[in-house]
Amino acid sequence: MTDFVRHVLRSDDEDYIVRSRLDSDFYKFTMAYFIWKFYRGTHVKFRLINRNKSFPLARIVNVGDLRRQLEFTKARMLTRTDLIWLRGQNYYHQNLFPDDFLQFLSELRLPEFRLVVDGDQFELTAEGSWESVTFWENPMMCIPNELIYRTAMREMTDKQLTQLFDNATAKLYGKFDQLKTRPWLRIADFGLRRRFMFLWQRFVLMSGKEKLGVSFTGSSNAHMSFGLDVPAIGTNAHELVMALAALAQTPSGIIDAQYEVLRNWKELYPLGGLRVVLPDAYGTSQFLRNMPEFLARDVARNWRGFRLDSGDPIAEGNMILDWYTKMGVDPIKENKLLIPSDGLDVDSIFAFDDAFKGRIAYAFGWGTNLTNDFRKCHPNGGERAVIRGDKLDLSWDEIFRGHSIVCKVESANGNPAVKLSNNVNKATGPKEAVDRFKHIFGTAGMGAQEVLV
Amino acid sequence: MTDFVRHVLRSDDEDYIVRSRLDSDFYKFTMAYFIWKFYRGTHVKFRLINRNKSFPLARIVNVGDLRRQLEFTKARMLTRTDLIWLRGQNYYHQNLFPDDFLQFLSELRLPEFRLVVDGDQFELTAEGSWESVTFWENPMMCIPNELIYRTAMREMTDKQLTQLFDNATAKLYGKFDQLKTRPWLRIADFGLRRRFMFLWQRFVLMSGKEKLGVSFTGSSNAHMSFGLDVPAIGTNAHELVMALAALAQTPSGIIDAQYEVLRNWKELYPLGGLRVVLPDAYGTSQFLRNMPEFLARDVARNWRGFRLDSGDPIAEGNMILDWYTKMGVDPIKENKLLIPSDGLDVDSIFAFDDAFKGRIAYAFGWGTNLTNDFRKCHPNGGERAVIRGDKLDLSWDEIFRGHSIVCKVESANGNPAVKLSNNVNKATGPKEAVDRFKHIFGTAGMGAQEVLV
Repeated sequence: MTDFVRHVLRSDDEDYIVRSRLDSDFYKFTMAYFIWKFYRGTHVKFRLINRNKSFPLARIVNVGDLRRQLEFTKARMLTRTDLIWLRGQNYYHQNLFPDDFLQFLSELRLPEFRLVVDGDQFELTAEGSWESVTFWENPMMCIPNELIYRTAMREMTDKQLTQLFDNATAKLYGKFDQLKTRPWLRIADFGLRRRFMFLWQRFVLMSGKEKLGVSFTGSSNAHMSFGLDVPAIGTNAHELVMALAALAQTPSGIIDAQYEVLRNWKELYPLGGLRVVLPDAYGTSQFLRNMPEFLARDVARNWRGFRLDSGDPIAEGNMILDWYTKMGVDPIKENKLLIPSDGLDVDSIFAFDDAFKGRIAYAFGWGTNLTNDFRKCHPNGGERAVIRGDKLDLSWDEIFRGHSIVCKVESANGNPAVKLSNNVNKATGPKEAVDRFKHIFGTAGMGAQEVLV
Repeated sequence: MTDFVRHVLRSDDEDYIVRSRLDSDFYKFTMAYFIWKFYRGTHVKFRLINRNKSFPLARIVNVGDLRRQLEFTKARMLTRTDLIWLRGQNYYHQNLFPDDFLQFLSELRLPEFRLVVDGDQFELTAEGSWESVTFWENPMMCIPNELIYRTAMREMTDKQLTQLFDNATAKLYGKFDQLKTRPWLRIADFGLRRRFMFLWQRFVLMSGKEKLGVSFTGSSNAHMSFGLDVPAIGTNAHELVMALAALAQTPSGIIDAQYEVLRNWKELYPLGGLRVVLPDAYGTSQFLRNMPEFLARDVARNWRGFRLDSGDPIAEGNMILDWYTKMGVDPIKENKLLIPSDGLDVDSIFAFDDAFKGRIAYAFGWGTNLTNDFRKCHPNGGERAVIRGDKLDLSWDEIFRGHSIVCKVESANGNPAVKLSNNVNKATGPKEAVDRFKHIFGTAGMGAQEVLV
């Protein structure tokens, strides 16, 4: 087992968070190929968003530390071995990526980023050609996250650190023990973006592979799936629909953006595994209702299934099941798959399992609560946190938890990008644009759940 | 830098020598595909041969240690990531290995080995289907080699070990410094089989990559080329000709075996990089003289070049150059390549460079003197060695050097296999068979050089 305490105590500037250009969600590569193929050169801007403005990110994380980590990440390129690994991928397909795209990747450099401090918050953006700037999403999330915890851990004694990691390890093992009581579950790691630390994610995955056995089906982290010899998992994200909707000018074009993604996606990825629909960018209900009949028949018959990334997962799952029934598809016979991936933990995994066992297949994309559950692990968690002598209006417990920090497409070719999702609290975009999209799509079926991470 | 002393002091039974099925010369994979494609199921036997019978291998290496290492190696399979890497190889070709061969590799298990002690020597053999048993060659060499040194190092103090590694490191760095004076040289590591230790080879290659820069062109070790992000180098070996000649019944069939290898090889590997001729199994002179005209024209025009693995490399190189001239090929204009790979060290590399600069391109396959030059590095090297209380008729210096231990095809479908080479001291096979082959091929142009390793 990695000696985390020793690591934390001796970590220095050379201890970079993103150690490999493959330390990225695998879906960034499947999406980048899609973008490179169909939308190359589109000018896209990403922005870091801390949804919880009362969390003083820039008072905790030193801007110099953040800049240094981002600069190092920007300079990293794919290695020869990385490219061989990408070329050799066959979990979903043989020859997933063609040579000309691999050539593009071999020369890929991340565009410039812009970082300024604005009160207690950072303003962090990156813009450039979509097929390049898309790779900023993961580092823009996992770097500030890890720096929060690294900074806070510098204020702790050796003994406190030992307790912190002992507690987190016990918690993690407890979760694995619970999950082992249902050996039919299929669970993959989706937790790169909000992991506690690079090394902690690796430890979590090594433990998960060992303790969960066949229930542990892989990781979204390309670098770690490579190192741990498990499948690299992932298909696509809201980014695609958001950018395409931003590029559309008319209400009908905006509605159609959701389906344009699917039409182009299936052209690139002709077999089943990668054909997973993410229906909730503007609400699942309208997605299913507005889907053109011809496409709906194709999705129902020839696509692998749906990822459920917002709203109540059981209600969403039932909506999809009803839709399959309406489309005349038996989800068991046709081997359809649901992939819940929003704020999961053992209880919600079990509740989903109870609700859908025998009705459809499902595999869980478990994120932050897998790779970053240090809640109540700090031995003096209730005390007010002091960072570099600065006494914050927060307890240590409010620091050692997952944070609702996201990195989203802000605009495409200058037009604002919007996400509504099934949960109005997860909407992103400028208010006027969000209102316009709400008007276009309606808000039927949308709820307002607390955003956990 | 790896702390070798600490490693040696704490190494135990779990510290396996062959840690990956890819810890193998890359040419085993290109040859295995050839064998699997054209000669699948041929029954082949490999044997460990210690050419120096006065070196009491079985008095130094404990048979139990050897058996445990071999058993562990036998149980190792290619991992998912290994297979992805093999599928993604494109240094020589795109899609080098087809899916059905990769499927075979994914299920590959090494056949049983047979190990007995015979006086001061081991009798170690393995037999089975050629496409599987071929993978025993590397571990049958690098395991006994590393065990010699591990065993001897257990007799040393911490301080002596520090001196040993300091001396070897200084020697290695001295060689790199010399080589840097000729930055046009191209040198690859061919030293897996007789490396001092797994960890030492990795250290040597990391240093070589750093210090030699572009002069360091890659490694024959697939695992290390993968980890160090350098090209995996290698084409084919004498094993192919030796087995095919053993299968042939008539003198003309035995002579033709050398050319059957080339005819089949070029069918598998249509582009240049892997088309390298190894002409010396039965002497280079007769190889060139007996080669059918049609094949000779193809080799001269369309193959990349020749590997020189026995005899005086300068004489051999001149013979090849004369042949190119006779064939009407300008080796500079046609970008032909010589690959000396027999017992090289800095002096012989420089001598070859002096002899051929501007006449033809060349790249060196540097083996034992790269990955295992501990000669005169033991602080009490002149003293008689004592292993587990057993006083040997050898000095420590006679232990801490490369040993002429090889692993050769002994028979194919029951027929004895023979190698003559350009050096009568490197001939292998039973005496009657060697005599028969000498009669068939003649011995014109063969010398008798000291076998260095």
